[in-house]
Amino acid sequence: MSGSTIGKIFTVTTWGESHGAAIGAVLDGVPAGIKLSEEDFFEDMSRRRPSDDKVSTKRKESDTVRIMSGVYNGVTLGTPISLMIVNEDQHSPSYNNLEHTYRPGHADFTYDCKYGVRDHRGGGRSSGRETAARVAAGVVAKKILAPLGVTFESVPVLREDIPAGDSVGGTVSLCIKNIPAGLGEPVFDKLDGLLSRALMSVGAVKAVEIGDGVKVSEALGSENNDEFTVVDGKIVTKTNHCGGILGGISTGGDILIKAHIKPTPSISLPQNTVTDGAESTVLEIKGRHDISIVKRVAPVLEAMCALVLADELLVNMSARMSNVISFYKE
Amino acid sequence: MSGSTIGKIFTVTTWGESHGAAIGAVLDGVPAGIKLSEEDFFEDMSRRRPSDDKVSTKRKESDTVRIMSGVYNGVTLGTPISLMIVNEDQHSPSYNNLEHTYRPGHADFTYDCKYGVRDHRGGGRSSGRETAARVAAGVVAKKILAPLGVTFESVPVLREDIPAGDSVGGTVSLCIKNIPAGLGEPVFDKLDGLLSRALMSVGAVKAVEIGDGVKVSEALGSENNDEFTVVDGKIVTKTNHCGGILGGISTGGDILIKAHIKPTPSISLPQNTVTDGAESTVLEIKGRHDISIVKRVAPVLEAMCALVLADELLVNMSARMSNVISFYKE
Amino acid sequence: MSGSTIGKIFTVTTWGESHGAAIGAVLDGVPAGIKLSEEDFFEDMSRRRPSDDKVSTKRKESDTVRIMSGVYNGVTLGTPISLMIVNEDQHSPSYNNLEHTYRPGHADFTYDCKYGVRDHRGGGRSSGRETAARVAAGVVAKKILAPLGVTFESVPVLREDIPAGDSVGGTVSLCIKNIPAGLGEPVFDKLDGLLSRALMSVGAVKAVEIGDGVKVSEALGSENNDEFTVVDGKIVTKTNHCGGILGGISTGGDILIKAHIKPTPSISLPQNTVTDGAESTVLEIKGRHDISIVKRVAPVLEAMCALVLADELLVNMSARMSNVISFYKE
Amino acid sequence: MSGSTIGKIFTVTTWGESHGAAIGAVLDGVPAGIKLSEEDFFEDMSRRRPSDDKVSTKRKESDTVRIMSGVYNGVTLGTPISLMIVNEDQHSPSYNNLEHTYRPGHADFTYDCKYGVRDHRGGGRSSGRETAARVAAGVVAKKILAPLGVTFESVPVLREDIPAGDSVGGTVSLCIKNIPAGLGEPVFDKLDGLLSRALMSVGAVKAVEIGDGVKVSEALGSENNDEFTVVDGKIVTKTNHCGGILGGISTGGDILIKAHIKPTPSISLPQNTVTDGAESTVLEIKGRHDISIVKRVAPVLEAMCALVLADELLVNMSARMSNVISFYKE
Repeated sequence: MSGSTIGKIFTVTTWGESHGAAIGAVLDGVPAGIKLSEEDFFEDMSRRRPSDDKVSTKRKESDTVRIMSGVYNGVTLGTPISLMIVNEDQHSPSYNNLEHTYRPGHADFTYDCKYGVRDHRGGGRSSGRETAARVAAGVVAKKILAPLGVTFESVPVLREDIPAGDSVGGTVSLCIKNIPAGLGEPVFDKLDGLLSRALMSVGAVKAVEIGDGVKVSEALGSENNDEFTVVDGKIVTKTNHCGGILGGISTGGDILIKAHIKPTPSISLPQNTVTDGAESTVLEIKGRHDISIVKRVAPVLEAMCALVLADELLVNMSARMSNVISFYKE
Repeated sequence: MSGSTIGKIFTVTTWGESHGAAIGAVLDGVPAGIKLSEEDFFEDMSRRRPSDDKVSTKRKESDTVRIMSGVYNGVTLGTPISLMIVNEDQHSPSYNNLEHTYRPGHADFTYDCKYGVRDHRGGGRSSGRETAARVAAGVVAKKILAPLGVTFESVPVLREDIPAGDSVGGTVSLCIKNIPAGLGEPVFDKLDGLLSRALMSVGAVKAVEIGDGVKVSEALGSENNDEFTVVDGKIVTKTNHCGGILGGISTGGDILIKAHIKPTPSISLPQNTVTDGAESTVLEIKGRHDISIVKRVAPVLEAMCALVLADELLVNMSARMSNVISFYKE
Repeated sequence: MSGSTIGKIFTVTTWGESHGAAIGAVLDGVPAGIKLSEEDFFEDMSRRRPSDDKVSTKRKESDTVRIMSGVYNGVTLGTPISLMIVNEDQHSPSYNNLEHTYRPGHADFTYDCKYGVRDHRGGGRSSGRETAARVAAGVVAKKILAPLGVTFESVPVLREDIPAGDSVGGTVSLCIKNIPAGLGEPVFDKLDGLLSRALMSVGAVKAVEIGDGVKVSEALGSENNDEFTVVDGKIVTKTNHCGGILGGISTGGDILIKAHIKPTPSISLPQNTVTDGAESTVLEIKGRHDISIVKRVAPVLEAMCALVLADELLVNMSARMSNVISFYKE
Repeated sequence: MSGSTIGKIFTVTTWGESHGAAIGAVLDGVPAGIKLSEEDFFEDMSRRRPSDDKVSTKRKESDTVRIMSGVYNGVTLGTPISLMIVNEDQHSPSYNNLEHTYRPGHADFTYDCKYGVRDHRGGGRSSGRETAARVAAGVVAKKILAPLGVTFESVPVLREDIPAGDSVGGTVSLCIKNIPAGLGEPVFDKLDGLLSRALMSVGAVKAVEIGDGVKVSEALGSENNDEFTVVDGKIVTKTNHCGGILGGISTGGDILIKAHIKPTPSISLPQNTVTDGAESTVLEIKGRHDISIVKRVAPVLEAMCALVLADELLVNMSARMSNVISFYKE
C-alpha cells in the first residue's frame, strides 16, 4: 500500500501539489447507492478555505470540487469516485527566492533528503493545500456514516495575542457521536491507533490524545476506569475517561480526541537557515501565509476521522459468521 | 490487510491469547543474511517479563522464544520467520468468576460487541500477554536497524505512592538515534503517523507526543521552528522541537516520542459493573495483576517503533531512480 | 502486503520450510462463531498426503494440524487462528550432495539469485511441503463458504504411461458450485484474476483457464456469448462458456477453472546442470520423489480457490449502502 | 487494498467510466528523478486507439494524456502522479435501448447483482475504454524498467475470416527481455501469479499460459526441465520451457506469456436475453463496436506486465541485508 493511500475497503488516494494544475482524490470501495452531488461539498470546503479573518492567508481559492467519475444519476455506482479541485490562485513568483533555501519548520529539507528533487513552489506536496482533497474525501465518508446518525463536532482553541511577524498553534478537540460499538480491528488496527495515525498525517499535528489523554499518566485506576451500567436496556459506561474506545474497539460512547497543532512555520521574522548547498543564509519569508491554521484545520481533522470510521464501519460487517450467513441467505 | 498485521515490506503478524497454548508472530520481508539465534531474544524478553519488584504481576513465564522457520545455519533466509512463545503459567481458574462479567477499563465488553464470543480467561487476545510476541518481533527489527548504528532508549516514569488495592499509570519517553534522514512516506504513511499508530496499538497508551508534543499548542512559530545549520559538512537542525520528523519524514536528528500510559484496569478495590446479561453486579478482581505496567511496557514501545522504522528503512530504498539503476547495474 | 500473505479481510500468512521444525499458517479476519476443531482437517490433509500409489513420494508425514490460537470452546473467536503442522519425516542426508548444485526445474537457482542464501534441504520453502499449510487454511475457508451450500469438486487427469526414471504432469479441472452472484472487485481484483493468481502461486502450475479457456481464442462471439434466461424466477445463463465469471464478477453459475501442472522436476535420470560456483556437473537425484503430483495437488488448488472466494464473500458485504444501513440499524 | 489499486510500492489506481467526463490513473511510489512528459504517452496510446482497419470500433478518441501532478521541470518528484484522459466521443444515445437489458457476454448483469445500480452507457466501468488509463500507467512503468534494458514485444494472432455481424477472439504472445533474475515474492506474490492476475484483470482474457503453458500437462520431466549452463560467465538455462520464471522468481531469461482473448461480446446478430425485470427479449446491438480487440489489447497487456514488473523491481531491492547496509552507508 502506498503512502498516499489510506483504508482497507473504503480507500482514499490523494494527489497534487500546491502549485500544480489541480489536486484531487480517488475514493474506492464506496458503497453503491449513496446520493452524491457537487453541492454536497460546499459546506466543509468553505470551512477549510481561508476566510477574511485576521489569521488566514490571503490566497483565494474557490475550492470547487468536481466529480469526475463514480456517480451517475446523482447516486454512487460502487466504482471509484474521482474528485478534482482546480488550483486557481497560485502565486509562484513569491517562492522564487526559496528554490534553494530550506525553510525552518517546513519539509523542504526532508523532501530533498528523500527524493533528491522537489517542487519548491508553495511547498509542493507538503503544503497544506493538499488537505483540500482530504476534506472533499471526508464529505463522502461522512455520507457513509450519516444514515447511522453519526455527527462530528470540532472545537478549535488558539492563543489570542499574537506578536507581530510571528505565528501561533493551538488545539482542536473532536467529539464524534453515535459511532456503533464494535468498530476497530485489534491489534494493529485498533481504532485509536488508526485515528491517531490519521490525525498525525495532517501537517502540524504533533500530539494526539484519546479520552483523558495525557491526564491518564497521573491518574489512579479507581479514577480512570469507566464503570458499566445499563441505560434504557443498553449497556453503557457511566463516565468516559476512555474516550469511547476500549481495547481498541468502540464502546458506543462519544469518541473524544484532541490534537495539538504547532504554530505555522512560515513567519516573516528573519530566520537563520541554510541553502541546499549547505551555506548559511538569512530567510525572510514574504507572500501570503496563515498566522494560525487551527480553525482551518478543524474540518480537515474531522475528515480524517471520518475516513477511518467509514472504513472500519464496512470492515466490521464480517466480524460474525451469523451476520455473513444471514446476509447471503436473504 | 488484516488487523493483526503491520507493515508494507517488512510485515509482522501476531497471534495468540493469554491462556491459549502459545503466542507468536510471523515476520515476512526480513532481508536475507542477518545473523539470528534464539539467544538474541533473551535481553528484551526479560526486560518485559514480570520481575520481583512490587508493582508487577506474580505470573511467571520464561518467555522462551523458539524460531520455527526462516533461519538456517544461524542466518535469515529471506523467507517468513515464525517465532513461538509457549504459555506456561496460565491460571485459568482465577478467571472463573469473570466469564460473564464486564471488567471496567478492559476490552471484555467491546470484544463481545464485536465478535459475540470471547475467551474470558486472562482477557484473551486483549491481554498484555500478547505483547510478548511483539517484543520478539522487535528484536528482529532492531537487527535490521543495528548495522546503521540505530539505538533505542526508553525512560519510564511513574507515580511512586500507590494507594492500596489501586493502580497507577505513567509515561515512557523514547529516544531513537541515528535513523537516516528521508524515512517516511507522505501523506498517510508519514513517519510520525505510523509511529503514533504503532504505539497506540499497545493497550493502555492513551496519548502520543512527537518532539515538543502538547507544548507546541502554546508556542510561537519563532520558538518552535528548528533552524538549520551545518555541522561537519552535514545539514542538521540546531534545536529539535520537531522531534526528528519534519513533514512526516525523518531529519536525521534524534526521534523523540512520549507515550502516556493509563493505570492498569485490574484493581482489587470493589467496582460497580454489569454482566453480559445486563445485570448490575459488584466486581472484586482477584488473581495476579500488575499495579503498574509502565516499566514493563517500555521494551514493547521500543519494539513497536523498531517495527515501523525497519519497514520504512526498506521501503525508502526505491525513492530515487538513480538508486534503482545503480542497484541493478552492479 | 508481503509475499507470504494473501487476502484483504480474510487473510492467510503461511510459513515454514520443508526440513524445518514445522510449517504453519496464521489466518486473520475469520468471522467469529464458526465451529472448528482439529478433526475438521483430517479429510483434506489426507487427500494431499502421499499415499501408497505408484506415483507418490515415499516420505511419510502424519500432517496433523494443531490449532494454537483463535478457537475457544470449539468456536472461532474472530482473533487470529494459528495452525501448525510438525514436520516428521525429513530425510536431510538425502540432500547432502545438493547443497551446491542447481537442480533443473527447481527454484534453487532463483532463490540464490534473490536471497544469496537458501535452505537446500528438501528445497526449503520452495518445496511442495509448504502446501500442507495452505490445505489447512483452505479447510477454514471452506467452513466460511459451506453454510451457503458452496461445494468444491476437482478432477485430476494425468498421463498413464510413465517411462522409468521420469515424471509426468497433468491437469486439474475444478468446479465450484453455489457461489453467490456479485463476488469480485473490478478492476484489479476481478474474481478470475484473483483465482488465477492463487492457482499459479502453487508450484508447478504453468497455465490457468477460466470457463472455455484457451478455446475462446478460436470461437466466434455468437458461439461464446452466454445468453440469459429465467429459471424459477432467477436470472441465469443458458450456457456457461464464461465459467461463472463475467466482467470479473461471479454470475451465480458454476465456476469452472482448469490448471495445467508441469511434470515434477525431480527425476532420477541423469541431468546436466551447474553448481553455484558455475561449474558443469551431472546430477542424479536420489531420495523419495513424486513421479506425478497431479492427484495430490488437487486439494491444494481447491484450498487456494476457497481462500479467494471466502475473502471476496466478506469484502462484498459492503458493496451496497442499503445493506450497510440495514446491518447497523438492526 | 481496494479492487481498483494494484501494486505494493509502485501502486496504480484507475478510475472512470466509458461515458463519464474522463478516465484516469493515480500512480504512487514512482521513484523520483525520471524524465516524464506528455509526449511520452503518444506511442502506446495510439497503438491502443481504434484505427481505421476493418476490425476496430469507429469511436474516435484522441486519448490525450494530461499529467496533473507529480512532475516538475520534466522530472518525477516521487509524489503521486495523476494522469487524466478526457472522454471525447461518447455517443450515449446509442445505448438508450440498453438501459434495462442485460447484454450477453457483458458485465451488465453481474454489476447489477453486486451494486444494484450501474451506468449502462457504453458499459460504464466494465467497458474497454477504462484500459486507456492502464496503458498510460504502463508508459510510466516502462520508464522504470527501460534503464535496465527491459523490452516488451507482443504478437497478436486472430482469425482472419469473420462472418458478418459476428466477432472473433485470438491470442497475444508476450516476450519480455532483460528482466533481472530474482524478481517475485514467494509464495503468494510469485511473479507468474502476479502476471496472470494482471493479465486476467483485462476484460476478455480467459486463459493465461507461462512458458510452455498448456503443453506442460502432456510433457515428461526430462523434456520439460531446463538444464543450466554457463554462458559468458553467467548461469543461464539452455532451454526456456519455464518461460523465464522458476519457483515464482525470474531466472533472467526471457519472460514468455500467452493470453487468450475471447471474441468481443457486442455483435450485431440478434441474441436472446432478458431485461433487469426478468423478461425475455431479443437484443440487436447497434452502435460502434470492435469486431476484434486482439490487436488493440496487445499494448494493454504489455502495460499490465510492466506494472507488475516495475513494482517487483522495487520490492526486490531489500531482499538482502548486505544491500540494505551498503545502501545506507554510502
